[in-house]
Amino acid sequence: MSQSIPDLIAKKRGGGQHSRAELEQLVGGYTRGEVPDYQVSAWLMAVFLKGMTEAETADLTLVMAESGDTLDLSSLSDTVDKHSTGGVGDKTSLVLTPMLAALGLTVAKMSGRGLAHTGGTIDKLESFPGWNPELPEDRFLAQARDIGLALVGQSKDLAPADGKLYALRDVTATVESLPLIASSIMSKKIASGAQTIVLDVKSGAGAFMKTLDDSRALAQAMVDIGTRAGRNVRAVLTDMDTPLGHMAGNSLEVQEAIATLRGEGPADLTELCVTLAAEVLVAAGKETDLARAQERAAATLKDGSALAKLEAFVSAQGGDGQLVRNPAGLDVAPGRAEVLAPESGYIARLDALSVGRAVLALGGGRERKGDPVDVGVGVETVCKPGEQVAAGDVIYRLYHRDGRGLERAQELLRGGIELSQTPPEVGGLILDRVQ
Amino acid sequence: MSQSIPDLIAKKRGGGQHSRAELEQLVGGYTRGEVPDYQVSAWLMAVFLKGMTEAETADLTLVMAESGDTLDLSSLSDTVDKHSTGGVGDKTSLVLTPMLAALGLTVAKMSGRGLAHTGGTIDKLESFPGWNPELPEDRFLAQARDIGLALVGQSKDLAPADGKLYALRDVTATVESLPLIASSIMSKKIASGAQTIVLDVKSGAGAFMKTLDDSRALAQAMVDIGTRAGRNVRAVLTDMDTPLGHMAGNSLEVQEAIATLRGEGPADLTELCVTLAAEVLVAAGKETDLARAQERAAATLKDGSALAKLEAFVSAQGGDGQLVRNPAGLDVAPGRAEVLAPESGYIARLDALSVGRAVLALGGGRERKGDPVDVGVGVETVCKPGEQVAAGDVIYRLYHRDGRGLERAQELLRGGIELSQTPPEVGGLILDRVQ
Repeated sequence: MSQSIPDLIAKKRGGGQHSRAELEQLVGGYTRGEVPDYQVSAWLMAVFLKGMTEAETADLTLVMAESGDTLDLSSLSDTVDKHSTGGVGDKTSLVLTPMLAALGLTVAKMSGRGLAHTGGTIDKLESFPGWNPELPEDRFLAQARDIGLALVGQSKDLAPADGKLYALRDVTATVESLPLIASSIMSKKIASGAQTIVLDVKSGAGAFMKTLDDSRALAQAMVDIGTRAGRNVRAVLTDMDTPLGHMAGNSLEVQEAIATLRGEGPADLTELCVTLAAEVLVAAGKETDLARAQERAAATLKDGSALAKLEAFVSAQGGDGQLVRNPAGLDVAPGRAEVLAPESGYIARLDALSVGRAVLALGGGRERKGDPVDVGVGVETVCKPGEQVAAGDVIYRLYHRDGRGLERAQELLRGGIELSQTPPEVGGLILDRVQ
Repeated sequence: MSQSIPDLIAKKRGGGQHSRAELEQLVGGYTRGEVPDYQVSAWLMAVFLKGMTEAETADLTLVMAESGDTLDLSSLSDTVDKHSTGGVGDKTSLVLTPMLAALGLTVAKMSGRGLAHTGGTIDKLESFPGWNPELPEDRFLAQARDIGLALVGQSKDLAPADGKLYALRDVTATVESLPLIASSIMSKKIASGAQTIVLDVKSGAGAFMKTLDDSRALAQAMVDIGTRAGRNVRAVLTDMDTPLGHMAGNSLEVQEAIATLRGEGPADLTELCVTLAAEVLVAAGKETDLARAQERAAATLKDGSALAKLEAFVSAQGGDGQLVRNPAGLDVAPGRAEVLAPESGYIARLDALSVGRAVLALGGGRERKGDPVDVGVGVETVCKPGEQVAAGDVIYRLYHRDGRGLERAQELLRGGIELSQTPPEVGGLILDRVQ
């Protein structure tokens, strides 16, 4: 016997715990259009103020994961996935996924496109002319089996409950709720089918979670959900107070990713990719010792095996694989400009969000779904936090197309620079691990 | 500068206090169709869980009172109004309003029709053939000035925000919130224009508030709102565990009201009407001593002045005033049936709600707005709680039309009878006063 929707709202209002059947009635019903938004928004506020238990959050996630299509990867072995909670200039996937393939694991992944200041992996891969984000399911699975790496745009309706609930939360002041955030992220991951999931939870000004405590709580909630759903899940908390690597913008990030796959990349990006790959190896049960796992991961950069996987992958999806060996041939906008240090001192902080917005201003991102993206524009962070600069030193280099959005981008970047007269404390990239 | 609606929801979510302008933006905007229901329902849940201060509740009430038409009674002197929080077989208005007119006060009132098990005063007055609930505003005011009593059906759109909010609360589990209940009731009363308002707050199984503490809190909240709005307000808490008087059903209640106006009515109904009339006299500043006020109120029943007011009022609105002197001529259904005591004992409790539902089953109320009502059917409570009965004694007498709904009504009544083998404690009718 199903209860009435007001009864279910009243239960959460009183701090009660929902069964999975009740969550299916509410959230499944909402997704199917059977429960109106005004009832769900009252329920969301009750969830926001009364919380959810670990078991409830896991049940909610499964209800959302099963609200639409799911990706069946059961014909593949050792399927792994990585999720980053977002951030600016995150080219990690471009480096990590070929590393994982080189380690003998299978990455078969649907990715979304970028919106606002967050670039999407699909957009970055489109820097390779001819590269095709649309594969029929049988070819997608066959490629994942053969190469260990297949990435396509999102064609299936994975966890539609998440999109519908998020849109409602956005206008009803119910976004910042831990169980709702954790279930939103994990529902997509679980619908995406991989057996092993490693989460890169970013913390700091450029990230969704601004404090380490909040980030740790979110990571723990997501690991708990995944474990209850029978997946192997671990999380790494990483610093997002400054952009990762030096480059932001699609072609520029691909060039930096290729340099990293050659073992010549920036230290922070290399460290993060080696760390995440090692966590995946351990989570997937392919290695028990973390230090040994890191050695194996780092070796794929030194021996060229990860770079070879990227080339095979780009070619298999119709892209110009030659560009992996010759990344200077990628489309980079010809215009150059700089943002200079206004005075001498130490770089205390560079705001990651400002860098993302500057790329957007230059035309390298989309304001609205479907907007075209200029893959060639971007921002290079020349000096990183902790470094000493003299007045007039170049802090940022901009790659623009005919000056489009240049002044606005420079203004945004200038606003995100903090200098100090004493050397700042610069923390490490890896803040914590959760399992 | 107005804030965004999500900002306002977030403010209440965090336990903040709204200004009147913010409440106008939310609730006024909702009434005008500018704010969607899914945002208001999230806000209502935040109000439910975080509460409202006395000042906020009063501001909300005024925003709701000003959301539509208001009744301008400023051309009349000593305008008074009574509100009952509902209940079964409440014929108080039929007795009280002529008493108030006889005391020199002015009652100019718009009343709604009854729904479900709650009878409406307008329905009861339609037991007088020809009586017209629709008067143009000038005639309504002139009659109130001349006789001191004019009652019409609700033609103006008084406090439409209340109806709209109530409908939303009903489906989002946000009904039982003290500030929302109090503001809902008081918004209508304030829009109705009377300077003095006495509230009859019923407590017990047949009433909206089931415990004395809840009823007292509601009464205090409503008195505070009215006082802040510059009205004279007092409240009386009364027992609603058993039906008032003996009769339920339109014509039967009118007959009982007339008997009471002759000084021959049931003790409980007489006591309540005298109590309420005395409270109105004191609240309106026409008497300082409550005992003396009660004497003056009781005198209107003994000297025939209240009965004369009822006759003048019924005649002025086109009804057959003769029937006030000869109430046996009112339409009472001819069918008779009984519900008997199943065994000997004391009557411990008679459920008021069952009586209301039995009248509804017999055809004496409406399931849906606009349904026709049979004024002649009803239920007489022959024995009252505390009385001793033998097996087979008549507890209820039913007045039915050709047996319509009779079995269902008898079943409902039987289910509401509680007998005990020891004399039960029967409490008084007047439980408390709030001012």
